[in-house]
Amino acid sequence: MSQKKRMVVIGGVAAGMSAASRAKRRNPDLEVIVLEKTEFISYGSCGLPYYISGLIDDHNKLVIIPPKVAREKRGIDVRLQHEAVEINTTEKTVRAVNRHNGQEVFFPYDKLVVATGAGASRPPIEGMGLKHVFVLRTLNDGVALKSYLKSGKPKRAVIVGGGYIGLEMAEAFSAQGLQVTILEKLPSILGTTDEEITTIVEAELERNQVALYKNANIVAFEGNASGEVTSVLMEDGHRFETDLILVATGIKPHVQFAEAAGIQLGPTGAIAVNEKQETNVPDVYAAGDCAEALHLVTGKPAYIPLGPTANKQGRVAGENAAGGFGIFKGIVGTSVFKTFDLEVARTGLTATEAEREGFSFVTSTITDKCCAGYYPGASPITIKLVMNQENGRLLGAQMVGNHGVSKRIDVFATALFKKMTVEEISQLDLSYAPPFAPVWDPILIAANIGLKALKK
Amino acid sequence: MSQKKRMVVIGGVAAGMSAASRAKRRNPDLEVIVLEKTEFISYGSCGLPYYISGLIDDHNKLVIIPPKVAREKRGIDVRLQHEAVEINTTEKTVRAVNRHNGQEVFFPYDKLVVATGAGASRPPIEGMGLKHVFVLRTLNDGVALKSYLKSGKPKRAVIVGGGYIGLEMAEAFSAQGLQVTILEKLPSILGTTDEEITTIVEAELERNQVALYKNANIVAFEGNASGEVTSVLMEDGHRFETDLILVATGIKPHVQFAEAAGIQLGPTGAIAVNEKQETNVPDVYAAGDCAEALHLVTGKPAYIPLGPTANKQGRVAGENAAGGFGIFKGIVGTSVFKTFDLEVARTGLTATEAEREGFSFVTSTITDKCCAGYYPGASPITIKLVMNQENGRLLGAQMVGNHGVSKRIDVFATALFKKMTVEEISQLDLSYAPPFAPVWDPILIAANIGLKALKK
Repeated sequence: MSQKKRMVVIGGVAAGMSAASRAKRRNPDLEVIVLEKTEFISYGSCGLPYYISGLIDDHNKLVIIPPKVAREKRGIDVRLQHEAVEINTTEKTVRAVNRHNGQEVFFPYDKLVVATGAGASRPPIEGMGLKHVFVLRTLNDGVALKSYLKSGKPKRAVIVGGGYIGLEMAEAFSAQGLQVTILEKLPSILGTTDEEITTIVEAELERNQVALYKNANIVAFEGNASGEVTSVLMEDGHRFETDLILVATGIKPHVQFAEAAGIQLGPTGAIAVNEKQETNVPDVYAAGDCAEALHLVTGKPAYIPLGPTANKQGRVAGENAAGGFGIFKGIVGTSVFKTFDLEVARTGLTATEAEREGFSFVTSTITDKCCAGYYPGASPITIKLVMNQENGRLLGAQMVGNHGVSKRIDVFATALFKKMTVEEISQLDLSYAPPFAPVWDPILIAANIGLKALKK
Repeated sequence: MSQKKRMVVIGGVAAGMSAASRAKRRNPDLEVIVLEKTEFISYGSCGLPYYISGLIDDHNKLVIIPPKVAREKRGIDVRLQHEAVEINTTEKTVRAVNRHNGQEVFFPYDKLVVATGAGASRPPIEGMGLKHVFVLRTLNDGVALKSYLKSGKPKRAVIVGGGYIGLEMAEAFSAQGLQVTILEKLPSILGTTDEEITTIVEAELERNQVALYKNANIVAFEGNASGEVTSVLMEDGHRFETDLILVATGIKPHVQFAEAAGIQLGPTGAIAVNEKQETNVPDVYAAGDCAEALHLVTGKPAYIPLGPTANKQGRVAGENAAGGFGIFKGIVGTSVFKTFDLEVARTGLTATEAEREGFSFVTSTITDKCCAGYYPGASPITIKLVMNQENGRLLGAQMVGNHGVSKRIDVFATALFKKMTVEEISQLDLSYAPPFAPVWDPILIAANIGLKALKK
């Protein structure tokens, strides 16, 4: 009999645990070791804003598979507080540091899955190291921030960055009674949507007493003698007094030691993978927020790190590493978030992105109702379409409204996956009942108006 | 200059007014006459249950385009209380009766759109003519029923028929404080969903104190000396005492005088049309609840009369009648309704229907959550898939849950329109955020489990 094969997974959150679970299901004889540098695995980091807001009372509720369950029910050898620091792809070993005792441990592997994820970007602002300057990426980040909210009773929060985490957290801080200021470096918040959608989101922030400053150039975070942050100094000399700062300026893939080991990065700076989640190095797979994904609209690799992609990629990596056959076809750039009473969603390309990609395109924007106009609570929904002028295909859709946005965007996501024309979308047989949609669903209205724009 | 052309439309609700409006937009020189036998046009009959329940306080709110607006803003010559009674396709005239004065009027046409809709089916039960026995189809039906609820203060209602109208009305009557009994002739309510879904709906009725009797054979409706209904006599001798009866046993297309004029009916008994909404008679179009539609899953004509189809078909009929070019590709059998706290949706074929159509198929059913499990209010959602065993394509999907059903079904509707395989569906890049979906959307879970069933 052959010796038992071993798969090592670096990283125990979404992609890593998906890979480990799938591999064990595919091949129960495979030894599966997961190296996780923190003390938590498999948690829903997307739930952190709702833990901060108080909607979820215990951070442990965000843990999907506790280590005990992973070990006992799934047979996965989870090593917490084990930080991988080096991969030797010739000898096929991973060097890790046990953070409990500082010891080095070597893990030989037959198959390796790199699921190192991404880290919060930390811009080189003076004062980043002051107390009460937070990022929000890991469960530990969330616990630290929540702990300060409870103990420090802050009254004011400054959020640096007007992306979706910034806006989810604006709601969360407001729910906790804080006065919120968002500082956005660019002329517009939400790099992920075009102006027609963004302005509606900005109005929602204003309606909820969130102060928003765009083109905001920060010089430094300033602190007191105890090293606690007290204000943000701007380039124009203005100071924002604050009791805490959340830096939410995006994330960067953890690729340092993968790159050092000769694992190739793609044009986005994340790890390049094929549709089997294989890297350029034999027996080494990558998945999740450290990896790229094929964008099915542009046909190019993209870096859009989100939970569903991480889970799907991890599953495929685990399937293949365990000797099965799995394919991850790619993404179309779908996402949604909630801020206050708004749902904001997008899929495919914005006009800005279509421009950058060199498409010849037209756009159209409509506002209609989420449900029958006579139904109580019918609220507006705005849809912007970006369409390929040459072949009439949808390139992207953006949507904002109080209700009925998040799953409606998925119709456009499905259309993008199948490269549908706007004419085809206008023919869709969509569900209708007064509480859920007008008889002409906003999707169909958007497609009909889009068709007119295409014919001009 | 040539004489002004005239289009006559029979029926002024969804399909008829869509046809008229579209034709006028396409060709403002066209004379467009709409013959409507009641005093209302263009109303949302699907909103009637919400008018009865009290959610909508005034039946006039259900009117989408008042006659004055149709005439003055859209240039449509609306003739209320004009009941068309005969079409002469040789002389190209419609004979109508003016119900105000009983006079006959003849309307010559160049183009004719038959949009006569459908009527509530009235089963031949003894006592159908008693007072307080209602059907609910037209705005007048709704006004009559609401009026009795206000004046008669009924305490008990019997609903005959457990279809979606029956279930919407069970909620509406309950909201008005009535004790509700549903009598269903068949062994199961909801002919439109399979048992896995139907049983969940039945539990919701029970939870809301609605009494449901299946295999219920009615002998007669019985009345008092004033001719008011008082009870329902069953075959087994049981009597249900009641203050009102709603007969909701389906609808039948109004095709009598169209058929008499030589307009061909299809296999379903509704008017046969091609994708331009043309009938077999030159210059005569049909659209809406009186017409068939091509079912894109079976490839055969179907009779599934619903508002969105009526509006789309009407638009295409009007476009073509006015000299433009429009195509209605067909339907996939999508529908949704709400009863109490449940959303119930379907698209494509149920297992029963797939069986009847002779498909070789497998099914799978899953229950998951509508949103992230840790998010407050996360509620179960059940999805049944029906899949073609030969090619792995989706044949149909059914879904039930408290939230997030209605637009989620549209992803499957889009998949059916594009003849997607279940494997393709499992790859979709769907929107995710904790308030709106789990990281593995129930759609993806359903597809993954479906794939396993297909591989067995």
